[in-house]
Formats: sequence, C-alpha cells, structure tokens
Amino acid sequence: MNAEIVAVGTELLLGQIANTNGAYLAQKLAEIGVNVYYQTVVGDNPKRLEGVLKVAESRSDLVLTIGGLGPTEDDLTKQIVARHLGEPLVTDQAAKTKIDEYAARTGKNLTPNNAKQALKIQHAISLTNHNGFAVGDLYLNQQGASYVLLPGPPAECLMMIDRELIPQLKKQGHQNHVFSSRVMRFIGIGESKLVDDLSDLIDHQTNPTIAPYAKMAEVTLRVTASAVDEDHAETLIQGVVNQILARDGQYFYGYGDDNSLADVVVNQLIERQLSVTAAESLTAGEFQSTIGNVPGVSAVFPGGFVTYANQAKHHLLSIPQTVIDNQGVVSEATAIWMAKQAKAKMKTDIAVSFTGVAGPDELEGQPAGTVWIGIAYRDEEPKAYLYHFTNGRQQVRARSVMAGLDLIRQKLTVH
Amino acid sequence: MNAEIVAVGTELLLGQIANTNGAYLAQKLAEIGVNVYYQTVVGDNPKRLEGVLKVAESRSDLVLTIGGLGPTEDDLTKQIVARHLGEPLVTDQAAKTKIDEYAARTGKNLTPNNAKQALKIQHAISLTNHNGFAVGDLYLNQQGASYVLLPGPPAECLMMIDRELIPQLKKQGHQNHVFSSRVMRFIGIGESKLVDDLSDLIDHQTNPTIAPYAKMAEVTLRVTASAVDEDHAETLIQGVVNQILARDGQYFYGYGDDNSLADVVVNQLIERQLSVTAAESLTAGEFQSTIGNVPGVSAVFPGGFVTYANQAKHHLLSIPQTVIDNQGVVSEATAIWMAKQAKAKMKTDIAVSFTGVAGPDELEGQPAGTVWIGIAYRDEEPKAYLYHFTNGRQQVRARSVMAGLDLIRQKLTVH
Repeated sequence: MNAEIVAVGTELLLGQIANTNGAYLAQKLAEIGVNVYYQTVVGDNPKRLEGVLKVAESRSDLVLTIGGLGPTEDDLTKQIVARHLGEPLVTDQAAKTKIDEYAARTGKNLTPNNAKQALKIQHAISLTNHNGFAVGDLYLNQQGASYVLLPGPPAECLMMIDRELIPQLKKQGHQNHVFSSRVMRFIGIGESKLVDDLSDLIDHQTNPTIAPYAKMAEVTLRVTASAVDEDHAETLIQGVVNQILARDGQYFYGYGDDNSLADVVVNQLIERQLSVTAAESLTAGEFQSTIGNVPGVSAVFPGGFVTYANQAKHHLLSIPQTVIDNQGVVSEATAIWMAKQAKAKMKTDIAVSFTGVAGPDELEGQPAGTVWIGIAYRDEEPKAYLYHFTNGRQQVRARSVMAGLDLIRQKLTVH
Repeated sequence: MNAEIVAVGTELLLGQIANTNGAYLAQKLAEIGVNVYYQTVVGDNPKRLEGVLKVAESRSDLVLTIGGLGPTEDDLTKQIVARHLGEPLVTDQAAKTKIDEYAARTGKNLTPNNAKQALKIQHAISLTNHNGFAVGDLYLNQQGASYVLLPGPPAECLMMIDRELIPQLKKQGHQNHVFSSRVMRFIGIGESKLVDDLSDLIDHQTNPTIAPYAKMAEVTLRVTASAVDEDHAETLIQGVVNQILARDGQYFYGYGDDNSLADVVVNQLIERQLSVTAAESLTAGEFQSTIGNVPGVSAVFPGGFVTYANQAKHHLLSIPQTVIDNQGVVSEATAIWMAKQAKAKMKTDIAVSFTGVAGPDELEGQPAGTVWIGIAYRDEEPKAYLYHFTNGRQQVRARSVMAGLDLIRQKLTVH
C-alpha cells in the first residue's frame, strides 16, 4: 500500500505557510503501516493540479489531497478529482443539514458557495468535518488509485485524520501491521562516527530500521519496527537498542523526540539533590538560561555569574588578576578558577565555567571557536577541557552550552 | 522561469520534521520573480528520487533539490543528479581545504565519508557552505532543466540560499523584473492594532504590497514593490514606508529580515558608548545571553548577575532581606533594587532587572506570567514596570527579554 500526499494551495507553494498537515498525515499513515513515498505541493491551479494527480496515480495506490475544499472560487480540489474520476458531485445530507442549522442559528445569509462545502464525490465514503463545514471524501477505487480528500485548515484537517480517516482505513483493512518507533539521543559523538560504529547494523537493517539524524551538537537514531502488534514491535526495538547501547552507550543520554540534554541533566540533578551554578564568559548567560527553562530547576539552581569582561572575572569571582594576566583569559587556569570560585561563592555542589572565543574575531591570538569549559564537582579537584567549535558565533556558544551539560552528565554517570 | 523544489529525506517524508527549508526557498525565489509551481518531497531512495527528477524536468526549467549532501550512506542526491546529468563528480578544492583544516585543527581522524561533502558536479558553479562542509551546486543547463543542490540542515540551507544562490541567480539574469522588498520591524504594538491603524493602506495596496506578520513579541511589515529596476522599486517602497512611519513610528525599531531588537539596541549602545548590565531572576541569563549574541557587545557589556533564588538576590546584589520579605520577590520594589544594585556593582550606565513568575506554578500568590522589569539609567531615579505575559514558561521568559530591550530602546530614544 503506497501512498502519496498532494497538498493544494498557493500559500503553501509560496512558502507563506509550512506544510504541517502533510507531516502529520504522513506520521499517522506510517503508524498504521501505510508507506508514504512522495509528497507534492501544487498551487490553486486546475491544470497543474490535474497533472499532479496523473503523476501520483502512476506511482501510488492511494492519493491523499489536502486543501481546496473551502467555499471560495479557488477551492477546486473536489471538482477536479471528481471530473478526473468521472464521478458527479452529490450533496452529503448530514453536511448540508449542519450548514443550514448554522445559518438558522446565527441568522446569517449563506451564499451558494457555502453549500458547495457539503458536496461529496458520488460513491465516496464521507469524512465528517468536526471543526468546519467542508466534508471530506474517501473514494475506494478497484480499477486504479484510491483517493482521500481532506480540508486545508489544520484544525479541520488533523481532527478529520484522527477521527475519520485513520479509523476508516483501519476498517477497510489498509493496515498490514503496526509500526512503532523509538528515538535515541546521543551527545559527544559525531554522526559519521556513530554511523561508522553501527555500520553493520545499519547496512543489514530491514526490521527494525535505524535512521540517524544530526542535530545541533547531538545525533539521534530513530529505531522503527513493524510487527503484528505493539508488543512484538517493542521487543524488536529493544533488541536493536541493546546492541546500540553495548557499542556507544557512553554517548547515549535519553529517549524521545521532545527530550533535551538540559531536561535530562536538570532532572537528574533534582532527583539527586545536587545544586549547580555557572560562571559564563563567551556564553554570556546562555547556559544558565538553558537550564532555567526546565520547570522545577529552582530547587537546584540558586543563580550565577555572567563575567564577560576580564574585570568582571576579577571583581565578581575574585580571580587573581595575575592568573588572567599570566595564563590568558582563554586558558585552562582561568576556566578552573572560574568554576572553583563560582562554586565557593554560591555554595553549590557543582559549578561549570565557560571562557573562550565566540568570534567572529580572534582573542589573545586564539581563533574563534576555542573554548575552555571548567567543572568543579564537590570536593574533587576542578578540571577544565579544551574544545574547538566552528560555524559562527551562535553555534560556538550553543555547542559550548551542550558540552557543559555533557560534562555534568558524565560526572553524574560516574558517581 | 518556472522552478520546482524537490526536498529529499525520509524524515521529511514521514513527517518527523516539517519542510521549512522549502517554504523559505519558495519565498526567496518569489522575491526575485522566479515562480515556484511545484514542491515535491521524496525519501532517501535512489530510484524514486531519479523518478521525481524526471517528472520535475518535464514541467520545470529549474529544479532545486534540498538535502542528501551529507556524509552518510543515505546522502545520495549529488551522486544521483550527477549521474542523471551525465557529469562526473569532482573535488571542490576550497571545500576540501576547509575539511582538511578542520581535521588538522581538531586532531580528528576524518572518515572518507567526510571528503564526500567536498564533491561537486563538474561544470557546476559551487555554492559555498558557510555553516557546514557540504558544498552546494548551481548547474546551468542549456539543453534541459538547470539544477540547484542545497544542503538539508536549515542553518546551512538558509545561509546558502541568502548568500550564494539568490545572488548567483540574480547575476545569471534569472529575473524578469525586479522585485524589491523591505521589512519594517515593530515592538510594543500588536498585529491587529497595527493592521487597524494601516487598514486603508493595506486594503488599497497593489504596488507596493504590505504584508503584516506577527512574530514572538513583535510584528513585521514586508513592503514589496515591483518595478523595472531597483531604484524605481526603492522609490515606491520609500513612499509607503513614510506613510507608515507617520502613523506608527514610535513602535518602529529597525529594518531587515535578519535584524533583531537586540542587534539594534546593542549597536545603539556601542555607538553612544553606554554600558549595560542586568540582574535576572525568572529569565535566568536569557537577557544577557541575547545581547551576548551580538558581535562587538563586549565594548559595552562587562557582565552581570543571575539571581534565581532569593538568597542570591540578597547575597550577590546586597538587596536588604527586609525588602524581599516585606514587598515580595515579585514586586516593584525588588525590581528597582535589583536594577539599582546591579548598576552600582558593575559601574555601568544602564542596568535592567527581571523578577517574575515564569510558571507553570504561581509564586507568592501571583499567577504565571506576572513580571516586573526594572531599569536604572545613569543618575535618573530607577523605575520598574509591570507586565502580564501568557503562553507558557518559554514565551513568558522570551517576552520579558524583548520588553527589557524595548525599555532600553525607549530610554535611548528620549535621551
């Protein structure tokens, strides 16, 4: 069962709005085992839309259109699909009644265009619109591609997908198997290295599949299995997850699409009742702001320092001027002093420090992207680590924050 | 000149990420008069990608692919387009040097996959990647459709579109008439109020057009004119801009798509040699981090305080405990003390302070979103202002930062 999504609308095509409906529909279809191989966006143009439908039919069993079911002149999807299928449009009585009742209740005079929204393709199954008037269609075709017509406004479209389309497709037996997936998140390892470590697993993947994805300063793997039910899919996924963890477990920090390193680290700190502070130079508060975004952080984070200028490092953190003068502000010694002093002044269990060159210009003869991150942990000797980041000021700062979070994560893993 | 965008990537196809690159590219092409009639998304599958390219060529003069230029096995776009065009892949020397230099600087052993990113299609114009390693291509084809290959990660793709692709297309004369646009940025006024103030201008717009767009805590207007050349377009734009400024000039803070309130404010501070600091509670460093992102800020920003817990306000800023106890931590008095003390301790011309309820829970009986922002400016009596923000922790914090920047902007406008 191969499906293709065709989104209709000039606003989408010109980039004035993003095609979030298409992304959602693809996800929901994947979950019931319907493969989406193509998505197309075309404007409100009858000739080009019909051309797109012909291409779609030639390569897909199910064509799902989104948009163009509304009341205005340029809403033409239903008319074009019906003509293309050689079927007339007929009135859906339930949809018509809903429109009439609305008109009666509000005392509005509805135009003939409103009635247009109650039309459906003859022989199609109607898909009720729970958030609007335009009725959707599921046209099952034994001779060629089947068609689904969905409305464009996201509130209408998503509700129709969930409540009408997916249940109908399941009922029609368009569900071979269950798809289930789990996202694994990694920090401190590049995409190429991770893929290299797992190359045999990835190369021989059939079920589950492993899809790597590089994000800012981290890599995710999406492990997806298909099976007869959720339990079997989970068992398959867990098997592969275990193999991956056996090889690169030290870089793994958590599961989930919406998870983040800051969430994981802050929640570990809260759980273990370890307090944290920071002294930030090049990151200028970005580390503290990032942990500050996690609800509940106030239990472990009293506050900290932004010491951008050298005199602030001296003045706020009492770092001896000789250290900065002799070792340089971007140095192991300064990073260690910053962490040590921040921890002492805020009386926390942990302190991290950031000193480096955000760029674009170099500093003390060191190139943009050179960053020292210090960490002081309880009674241990504080340490600092050297990093080289690239790709501009914003990335250098953001990657520094991720690296600082990762240093805390590593400390918590060891202890 | 009809263009088609082909986005490549299974994650896009399956709806795990939205096709924001495609939307952006369509917008930028429209601005130089290149019509996008189709957008297609296809997975990392060689056969299906080649099929999509054949369809695209049959109906478009320019085919722009996004994605699949990375180092992994499933990054195959360049290989497939090159084979399809009958051209070999050759090494782009500048891109290769950049990768080698990175390897040398970081001491990392790069895999052969990394070198793959420096390949370009023979006879193509290279598009430099300012945020990554994968080089892009512009392949001008007299016999058939021309091709553009762009990388998938948004930071790389958007920068390449702006700095490389659009200038190249303009240079190649892929421009029928000139479209020129200017973005005006407003703070402190809502979209509906602004649109209402300008309703007659917006309703009668033909050339230039005025397109409002609401962003987080600000509103932009894009004024777009078409004309025979840039000069004529600019004259048309300036006429409308003047009318808009006459009505709502007090909310206008700057021009440009990539501009930000932080950029404008920091550059004004630098120009006028006024130094700034901050004491942040609920924003936890986000204000300082935001101004810290503007290159050159070190000239006016020595550093500051993150005083998340009450004891930090007392300890780091020497705010009398009685003020916090009697007035509350989320209060006018505390905000004023925070600004006054931060200014005194850092010896700056200006200090802003943030104290409030980020949420999700209430604090001191005050609901999430209640925020006091203080400002101390030179010898003036410090003041604090009350705000009520909505839409969750992240928005409350981000809107607070924007409001703090706007307070500084207003001070600089008066003085």
